[in-house]
Amino acid sequence: MNAPGPALPPDEVLDWLDAEAATRSDSGLTRRPRQRGATPVPGEIDLAGDDYLGLARDKRVAGATAAAALKWGAGAAGTRLLGGSLELHAELEHDLARFVGAQAAAVFPSAYTANLSAVTALSGTESAIVSDKYVQPSLVDGCRLARGDVAAVAHLDTDAVAHALSTRRKPRALAVTESVFAVDGDAADLGALAATCRSHGAALLVDDAHGFGVLGDGGRGAVYDAGLSSAPDVVTTLSLGGALGVQGGAVVGPRRAIRQIIDVARAYGYDAAPAPGTVSAALAALAALREEPELPGTAVDGAMSLAQGLRAAGLRTSLPAAAIVSLPAPSAAAAASWADACAEHGVHVGRVCPPVAPDGVTRLRLTARAGLSESDVDTAVKVVSETAPRS
Amino acid sequence: MNAPGPALPPDEVLDWLDAEAATRSDSGLTRRPRQRGATPVPGEIDLAGDDYLGLARDKRVAGATAAAALKWGAGAAGTRLLGGSLELHAELEHDLARFVGAQAAAVFPSAYTANLSAVTALSGTESAIVSDKYVQPSLVDGCRLARGDVAAVAHLDTDAVAHALSTRRKPRALAVTESVFAVDGDAADLGALAATCRSHGAALLVDDAHGFGVLGDGGRGAVYDAGLSSAPDVVTTLSLGGALGVQGGAVVGPRRAIRQIIDVARAYGYDAAPAPGTVSAALAALAALREEPELPGTAVDGAMSLAQGLRAAGLRTSLPAAAIVSLPAPSAAAAASWADACAEHGVHVGRVCPPVAPDGVTRLRLTARAGLSESDVDTAVKVVSETAPRS
Repeated sequence: MNAPGPALPPDEVLDWLDAEAATRSDSGLTRRPRQRGATPVPGEIDLAGDDYLGLARDKRVAGATAAAALKWGAGAAGTRLLGGSLELHAELEHDLARFVGAQAAAVFPSAYTANLSAVTALSGTESAIVSDKYVQPSLVDGCRLARGDVAAVAHLDTDAVAHALSTRRKPRALAVTESVFAVDGDAADLGALAATCRSHGAALLVDDAHGFGVLGDGGRGAVYDAGLSSAPDVVTTLSLGGALGVQGGAVVGPRRAIRQIIDVARAYGYDAAPAPGTVSAALAALAALREEPELPGTAVDGAMSLAQGLRAAGLRTSLPAAAIVSLPAPSAAAAASWADACAEHGVHVGRVCPPVAPDGVTRLRLTARAGLSESDVDTAVKVVSETAPRS
Repeated sequence: MNAPGPALPPDEVLDWLDAEAATRSDSGLTRRPRQRGATPVPGEIDLAGDDYLGLARDKRVAGATAAAALKWGAGAAGTRLLGGSLELHAELEHDLARFVGAQAAAVFPSAYTANLSAVTALSGTESAIVSDKYVQPSLVDGCRLARGDVAAVAHLDTDAVAHALSTRRKPRALAVTESVFAVDGDAADLGALAATCRSHGAALLVDDAHGFGVLGDGGRGAVYDAGLSSAPDVVTTLSLGGALGVQGGAVVGPRRAIRQIIDVARAYGYDAAPAPGTVSAALAALAALREEPELPGTAVDGAMSLAQGLRAAGLRTSLPAAAIVSLPAPSAAAAASWADACAEHGVHVGRVCPPVAPDGVTRLRLTARAGLSESDVDTAVKVVSETAPRS
């Protein structure tokens, strides 16, 4: 135990941040977001983002933002509970629920707060939460904010979920998983998980951020694909900033689960409501999905071609369940150099470091999108494999 | 200790939510967000939202959303770390920092996640956090997610902050407050707090969501007004969904604090980046503030007229520090009836219930905005006072 700090000159109070920054720098963990301009650079290939269907720059979707801003204003002028609820929000909630076949939905300005809200509102002091230990930061934070018991179990291990549910000390339970995991793009067996939950009286919460718009009939998502989107004991969270190409998140599921979120979730009630332009853009993106139900499949095909090409070039990667391809690197610093070398050759890839990379292994993270051509895939495979660190 | 739940029919797993909803309903705690249409209803007065300057529907601001969407797209196409960082984000961060006189800024899609990020990134296992116990939910959640010791001290009590700082068991410390408190609109004495922090080697984090755009020279905020916006030991969070009328949040402060947030905050890295339309709208709102530096003062004047009118009509309310006027109600149910009666007479007010109302007292919450006329104030005072519950 250290003694409390003495009076310090004001400009020394935050000196410890410099020490931490130096440590991160030495370990290759400094984050260096690349800033893009307004239009893609000709010849460059962007495999870093989550715009799986290319809808972020789609004219129908961007046009909907513009039209909604001019009609409704730039913002909703309040939180959902304090003056900021618009008929437009209700329209998107209705359409999202209808698209996946759920009873109801609640939209959020952030997929992060949608996840916080779902985990905390659907559990409580009488609940056990059993979470796959590789779930993404927002779900981890949701578990940490929840007031029940939390068990993080082995990745993709349904038996471990069953064991944790059967040995819990609380009457109620919520199992938490991603459908397609954000880091490695591997998939949970939702059917087996739901069956396990049912044999233990537990509800299932699935973050379908990377399945929605990519998997299932016309992009209705992994939960829909597993026949669970209208189940009375399954709740799904979605990102509006992934395949829909916009920003924000949503929770869809049984009406009573959504009512609970509206009534008790702190982030639902006390954060500025989603802006009209983003809400209307999400509606337009759903309409685009209905018009082009084949679009999601082409993103999945692109990811598969990418992974197969990388494997043929001698790199270690598993076959993707959706549109995310993951490549482990020897170290965080090696991954940074690798990503930089790819960028110098016009191929932009993502990098996921610990602690978000849950096993301590930094990865390059490549995402396919619907418009990726065969020649794009060939170029990307060539650049990524030729710049790979020698191990 | 209860035994774990048995297998249940799937449609009974979430039955407990209905029981909780019934309990809330009995206590008047059901949330009932009113849905607005695209245009204000003539004759109605909206005192519920946080659009203090009326910028949400300002043509310059809404026009900026539309233009940015058409130029940049509806979304940023990824998280800040994975493909979604735009030059437009850097432009807003630069302009926000410049406007308040801070070194740097980081923007977020949500003010909620900006607060979570600031509290967690600026503390750690070696930190004590000392928070005013009335701070808003996002700061409470930030404290709960932080890994240091947390002490919640009496509201607006600088001596209590000093005591907690001097008796802490950790070498580092962060004091957390709102400048203008969201629930009651009362203000912290930031100068005294900063002096107390300095005599104890602590940093100060101020949520200026309800001061920014309202207080200080030209709306530069309460932290600027206290001469602290360029201090090396003070970090400020802002809402882009309050006076700026858009959506999202920001952290502004010393460069090394912002670098820490970019490097370690989970919600910064792993949530879809703010959409171009909202970013550009926030830039336009800052430009509008520069063009009309007198605008913020008119919102404060409106709130003062409202509070004085309500007091003259016999209601109990304190004089506002910014643009929020708070009226305690005898019960949550009485507050709901009161708000409904106001709405029937065309005056929309907010309602803040426990647990967000931190002392268990439900309030009506009225906000003034720049365009409020004398006759609007008179009408609002008449309606709110004549519909007040008899106590």
